[in-house]
Amino acid sequence: MEFTIDSEMLKNLLNIMGRVIPGNPAVPILSGILLEADRNHLILTGGDLNISIVKKIDLHATESGEITEAGRLVVPMKYFHELIKKMPNKTMITIKKLNQKIKVINGEIEMTLSGMNQEEYPAIPEMPDNGGGKVKGSLLIDMIKETQFAASKSDSRPVLTGLNWVFSENQLTMTATNSQRMAMRKTSLTTLVSGSYIFPIKAMTELIQVIDKHQFIQINPSDNLVVFQSEDLMFFTKLISGNYPDIEKIIPEEMVTEVVVNRSKLLQGIERANLLASQWKHNNVLFSFTEEGKIQLSSSTSEVGQITEKLVPLELKGDTQLQISFDGRFFAEALKSMKDELVSLRFGGSLRPILILPYNKKSTIHLISPVRAS
Amino acid sequence: MEFTIDSEMLKNLLNIMGRVIPGNPAVPILSGILLEADRNHLILTGGDLNISIVKKIDLHATESGEITEAGRLVVPMKYFHELIKKMPNKTMITIKKLNQKIKVINGEIEMTLSGMNQEEYPAIPEMPDNGGGKVKGSLLIDMIKETQFAASKSDSRPVLTGLNWVFSENQLTMTATNSQRMAMRKTSLTTLVSGSYIFPIKAMTELIQVIDKHQFIQINPSDNLVVFQSEDLMFFTKLISGNYPDIEKIIPEEMVTEVVVNRSKLLQGIERANLLASQWKHNNVLFSFTEEGKIQLSSSTSEVGQITEKLVPLELKGDTQLQISFDGRFFAEALKSMKDELVSLRFGGSLRPILILPYNKKSTIHLISPVRAS
Repeated sequence: MEFTIDSEMLKNLLNIMGRVIPGNPAVPILSGILLEADRNHLILTGGDLNISIVKKIDLHATESGEITEAGRLVVPMKYFHELIKKMPNKTMITIKKLNQKIKVINGEIEMTLSGMNQEEYPAIPEMPDNGGGKVKGSLLIDMIKETQFAASKSDSRPVLTGLNWVFSENQLTMTATNSQRMAMRKTSLTTLVSGSYIFPIKAMTELIQVIDKHQFIQINPSDNLVVFQSEDLMFFTKLISGNYPDIEKIIPEEMVTEVVVNRSKLLQGIERANLLASQWKHNNVLFSFTEEGKIQLSSSTSEVGQITEKLVPLELKGDTQLQISFDGRFFAEALKSMKDELVSLRFGGSLRPILILPYNKKSTIHLISPVRAS
Repeated sequence: MEFTIDSEMLKNLLNIMGRVIPGNPAVPILSGILLEADRNHLILTGGDLNISIVKKIDLHATESGEITEAGRLVVPMKYFHELIKKMPNKTMITIKKLNQKIKVINGEIEMTLSGMNQEEYPAIPEMPDNGGGKVKGSLLIDMIKETQFAASKSDSRPVLTGLNWVFSENQLTMTATNSQRMAMRKTSLTTLVSGSYIFPIKAMTELIQVIDKHQFIQINPSDNLVVFQSEDLMFFTKLISGNYPDIEKIIPEEMVTEVVVNRSKLLQGIERANLLASQWKHNNVLFSFTEEGKIQLSSSTSEVGQITEKLVPLELKGDTQLQISFDGRFFAEALKSMKDELVSLRFGGSLRPILILPYNKKSTIHLISPVRAS
């Protein structure tokens, strides 16, 4: 194997691969990166037992290097990545396999790294296209960002630590919940797949870092594995097994109060209230209305102090006697995940969940359960 | 006490004070910030048992607020700072003392924080001007940055954990060393003080964060305390007691080899070599010359690999048979602390310290002891 590649392109490729190659894996060969060169392509493979990435670059077409000799070798990622990172930009790097070693040459810089045993490197599974559908990278990134934060951080119910993707006729729904709050996002999708899959949050957070927002991403889920595939990338992740609860039926329909409010002003108010709510297990913030129809947020910590602030809503309908305590962190995280200038808050009563929706949109729903006042 | 102040100015002031007010001090009152208002000034005091800051702002002159009523109160810094940070910018904040509480009002936002017992707050010592001299803030910052990194991180010789300031006739010399490397910086100074003082590194790193580089800083050292004073700031720190070694006499005079080299190219080469030198206790990097008169840097880690690179010096004089191993981290830190484009390296032999100097300047000297090759 021998190829030459632009130093910045190699750095960018290794930054992507470095996200999923573990430093100290249970299976030592997985600390390596598999480098392969065919006639025109450089192919990089890396990952752990749950997530792996295959990146395939047509060096010839991108004019960022060339392949002199085909071949393959696994090299220790940590050292290879650190050394390439420190190479000067705007230079060409030559990489040669010599016996079981790799030689890296960049002008007057020469380094040799011992290779690893590539026979031990696990094969990447074949995943035929099952018609899961294609989603634009930017939409996939938005949908994941708007939902993944609401998943459970506790392992007591493993299915809730993941992001649930439900494929149904012409629709994809993503849902995350930790039982006290929920985030849900829908989009239309042409798909031949029908079913519910749970993807680990870690895989989702890596996926949105490595996919190209301008490309379409094809989704191929199978029973225990999914591959997200674009022109030059394959991203595999194992699924979480188990049945995801049917959340949609718990979304309340009846409302007693509805307000429309500026999202960032409400978020700032809740974040201030949170500072004095952190002594409480559920970070209690009290939401109520003043006689003049303003929203009032308040919180207090005994021996430290209290904060109260008022905010004028853009619209207010229904019962203004309502008082409801909620977990201010959950409320702030939901508002932060949104981009809309205005949000609607819908209340079913002081013991019922709050619904938060982008104003005049139905594709995203956040739900926060109330907490007892003290 | 009652005053009004621009929200961004108050945030900036609290960011400075927050650097030295401890979160969980042995003496509880020190977790507070002392707020004082006199006729025109807002005075903030905070610190721990070693470092303290007094910041005095003429609110009337800066037109960033006004004092309505004089008074003083100590409030818990953590909550006060976090809450003020979250206040909207470009607004005015009113702060009022009510009984032993503080009330903060900003438009429709109202908060109340319990005060602390200000009788317990320690008095700030009087420090008359003893003629230590005045140094421009920017020069003080440069001198500290160019030397402090070389101090010892180990407590085995406490004096070496500090930065030594020697005041002599018309000169100030700062020195830091950990016995294996040394950094020294001199400047001319009109001073009435003559003596050697050791300041804790933590105080030095905070000092360079809080002083204004455009202002002159007056230095008043005494036997166990020093104050750095500018128009609106007093920064106090305790000294480290003990005798600092007389380093200047160990700086070698005789040289067998001297090279002039581009600083950032040499730094990058050493940083690459460091990546494969980290298995060694002393991070050994080998420095030698090729037959064509190039500098050669190399390092290796068994079972991982090796790196060798060559660099063309701008000047080379003396013995080119020289080979010397040094601690690559120490060498890199010295080069990083410098700003000059070119540096001179002076070698007295493979068992003698390397001198690193800015090209054609004598105010800064770095010294690195060699390490045994293996």
